[in-house]
Amino acid sequence: MAERITPRSESYSDWYVDIVLGAELADYSPVKGTMVIRPRGYAVWERMQSILDGMFKETGHVNAYFPLLIPESFLKKEAEHVEGFAPECAVVTHGGGEELDEPLVIRPTSETIIWSMYKKWIQSYRDLPLLINQWANVVRWEKRTRLFLRTTEFLWQEGHTAHASAEEARDETLQMLEVYRRFAEEYMALPVLTGVKTPAEKFAGAVDTYAIEAMMQDKKALQAGTSHFLGQNFAKAFDVTFQTSEGGLDHVWATSWGVSTRLVGALIMAHSDDKGLVLPPRLAPTEVAIVPIFKNQNKTEVLAYASKLHQQLKPMHRVVLDDDDNNSPGWKFSQWELYGVPIRIECGPKDMQAEQVVLVRRDTGEKIPVPVAEAPARIAPLLEDIQRSLYDRALAFREENTRDIDDYQQLVSFMEGDGGFARVPWSGSPEAEAKVKEETKATIRVLPFGNEEAAAGKRCAITGEPARHMAIFAKSY
Amino acid sequence: MAERITPRSESYSDWYVDIVLGAELADYSPVKGTMVIRPRGYAVWERMQSILDGMFKETGHVNAYFPLLIPESFLKKEAEHVEGFAPECAVVTHGGGEELDEPLVIRPTSETIIWSMYKKWIQSYRDLPLLINQWANVVRWEKRTRLFLRTTEFLWQEGHTAHASAEEARDETLQMLEVYRRFAEEYMALPVLTGVKTPAEKFAGAVDTYAIEAMMQDKKALQAGTSHFLGQNFAKAFDVTFQTSEGGLDHVWATSWGVSTRLVGALIMAHSDDKGLVLPPRLAPTEVAIVPIFKNQNKTEVLAYASKLHQQLKPMHRVVLDDDDNNSPGWKFSQWELYGVPIRIECGPKDMQAEQVVLVRRDTGEKIPVPVAEAPARIAPLLEDIQRSLYDRALAFREENTRDIDDYQQLVSFMEGDGGFARVPWSGSPEAEAKVKEETKATIRVLPFGNEEAAAGKRCAITGEPARHMAIFAKSY
Repeated sequence: MAERITPRSESYSDWYVDIVLGAELADYSPVKGTMVIRPRGYAVWERMQSILDGMFKETGHVNAYFPLLIPESFLKKEAEHVEGFAPECAVVTHGGGEELDEPLVIRPTSETIIWSMYKKWIQSYRDLPLLINQWANVVRWEKRTRLFLRTTEFLWQEGHTAHASAEEARDETLQMLEVYRRFAEEYMALPVLTGVKTPAEKFAGAVDTYAIEAMMQDKKALQAGTSHFLGQNFAKAFDVTFQTSEGGLDHVWATSWGVSTRLVGALIMAHSDDKGLVLPPRLAPTEVAIVPIFKNQNKTEVLAYASKLHQQLKPMHRVVLDDDDNNSPGWKFSQWELYGVPIRIECGPKDMQAEQVVLVRRDTGEKIPVPVAEAPARIAPLLEDIQRSLYDRALAFREENTRDIDDYQQLVSFMEGDGGFARVPWSGSPEAEAKVKEETKATIRVLPFGNEEAAAGKRCAITGEPARHMAIFAKSY
Repeated sequence: MAERITPRSESYSDWYVDIVLGAELADYSPVKGTMVIRPRGYAVWERMQSILDGMFKETGHVNAYFPLLIPESFLKKEAEHVEGFAPECAVVTHGGGEELDEPLVIRPTSETIIWSMYKKWIQSYRDLPLLINQWANVVRWEKRTRLFLRTTEFLWQEGHTAHASAEEARDETLQMLEVYRRFAEEYMALPVLTGVKTPAEKFAGAVDTYAIEAMMQDKKALQAGTSHFLGQNFAKAFDVTFQTSEGGLDHVWATSWGVSTRLVGALIMAHSDDKGLVLPPRLAPTEVAIVPIFKNQNKTEVLAYASKLHQQLKPMHRVVLDDDDNNSPGWKFSQWELYGVPIRIECGPKDMQAEQVVLVRRDTGEKIPVPVAEAPARIAPLLEDIQRSLYDRALAFREENTRDIDDYQQLVSFMEGDGGFARVPWSGSPEAEAKVKEETKATIRVLPFGNEEAAAGKRCAITGEPARHMAIFAKSY
């Protein structure tokens, strides 16, 4: 078994690393800033991929694949984009033993290479909309890295769509934000705030960036997904025009949107505890672990009892039978807790006599004895209950740690103290936003939808000017 | 519609490019030697991935993800490996605006980075076997590239397994070769020869390389998948030892195995014709295209008729209804032929009157009128028949173009003439193998399983020495 997990109360960041390594989700690699996603971590990502991919296809998207390497000159075609990404690029200067004529950057994101292709594929409104997604790896050179949350290389999906009108592109942007919200809340059991980013926090090259924003157990915010309305910026940079249905010529309208393996980090931080990982059932690669409790003299009978249940559950659930001889039941209980399996089923000789098994919830530790004949029917509702409880618990936590603050000094002491989400009337001034960041490290995570109405009649907590927004300030990952 | 497809008889390689571009499977990218896999091509790869991934999991493998970038020094730890791959590497020299202390290569294959991690994860026989697969992109700097078949970047899967004994590792190597054979024959409808490569043709770093080898329509060979027995080469290079069950210490035994997006190229070359792509039904993203034949005055009725059938087929098959107004039925027929959809269903006013539809086979062009009520039940058997026919046709073609040749001059003229597979008694001499390659460009593609017995009593066609193998010589991609 893994070494001791640092309790959250002692060090939240050590706790996080202990979970990632101990539950064998990922490991440090020999290349600085990168990680290895181990099978137990990758299985969670595979479930995320498969569910998201289904949601993308239901909304009319198809997958494609664009090259990893992008000519350096492409990045420079969109002024904001190059400014944002050039400092983070890994650069290939040699290939096949020779120095390249033009250096190639490893994609930090694929807008430029994709829009260079869209120029070839789009001539007329009949070629639109073009609704393409890509599952890929990207590289952004990071100074300070953290397993899953910020690594030099990460896996993600990036949607890149092309439209005939601004309105249609904006609808797509919001539609994909809503897909991300549903995925976070319904599958990750992670409540999120949705809204728009301030200009200071938006994607380099976007007109508007929308995001889903979650609260972790240390009360910091984590940006879990973004959806960008790119306007005509990339179409202009790559000269992508189309014949409109009225016979005119216009630049194409664009969106892009992405989530990454960072979501695995968010999942860990949102639900896990001092015993290890806690996985929401819908994303758990294993939903149920059966641990038979036996000694040498009763091994055959107990294993037969457990094995029968295993066979019954297998067609309905992702279930494993832990019939390993080398470790004690107590060791196994801890191990399955560390791995985050939502339900453990214990059954020993006493349970056999009573014709029962004991279901143990990972989220609460509650032990539920049930007649063995009823066990198969009890699993699905219990998994659903765990899924819902995790969401409710995370939502209650976020609400407890969200404050309405309309005084600047209060905001400063809130951020210096326990912290959390502060809902703050804000004038819209970038200088005011920058001042808070400098003094407290907190940034505006999101301007939630509908925040403008709530700001009516209020005064900016920073400048005293009339407030235009109720902004969510928080420290963040 | 696409421009004219060059007939195979005129230029096989132009025909191939016309199909890839015309059927919108891939496109040239602005980065030399790389390509964009377009949605129609990527959908084929997705089907391949999903089927292969299922086969890997059935045989006990799990997925993981290792870093893209590998320290240059890692490659050098295995002497043959670096010799084989270093000349093909793309090298990252700068990251985050600074020159790196040690250059990083983009993985051309991942043995070295993976075995550096296996050193951390493997201590005892209880940690074995370790059965890991990775879906990833790799980069090999190629001078001459060809869409799908040879590109600087490609997508693939690479299995990397670790075992406690040579025998177990060799069994794994052969098991995965058999998985590839089954996939090629049962899903791609592509008959393959299986066997071992000669030392001249094996993977750089392997003890033995096994391969599946197929014949394309121009009678050239294409290596469609390889499975390597790596012995203890990488365990020794990275010092990966384990405590044996007897308490001793030994180096770990290894395999690796992979197939890539090259398979999409093989699929195209094996089955397609001068009208366009021909896809085996099991890998076709769309199995059936319904093309209603209507004019303005009967559009509503014909569309309703087609739409009813569409609704009936949808739960059972991957089917589209082409109700587009802008193109004529004839244009659509050609377009679906170009896209390679196995069955087209035509239905017009006359068919409505006769309560029938016409099924059109992509592979033979045969038109089969069937009562509309029977149509849903006719599709599955027809798809199976097409799948089998494509396999039979490809097998017959390979057999027609395989010759037993035991005279050197005959071998030379065979390769100078029509070419194909030559089954040739061979002494095992590398010099003899090299001589054939130099004079005819043909190489030994594979030494099929059981070839030694067939060689008994024969003399090498090149040297006149006693033959040890019946080798398959061919020109290849």
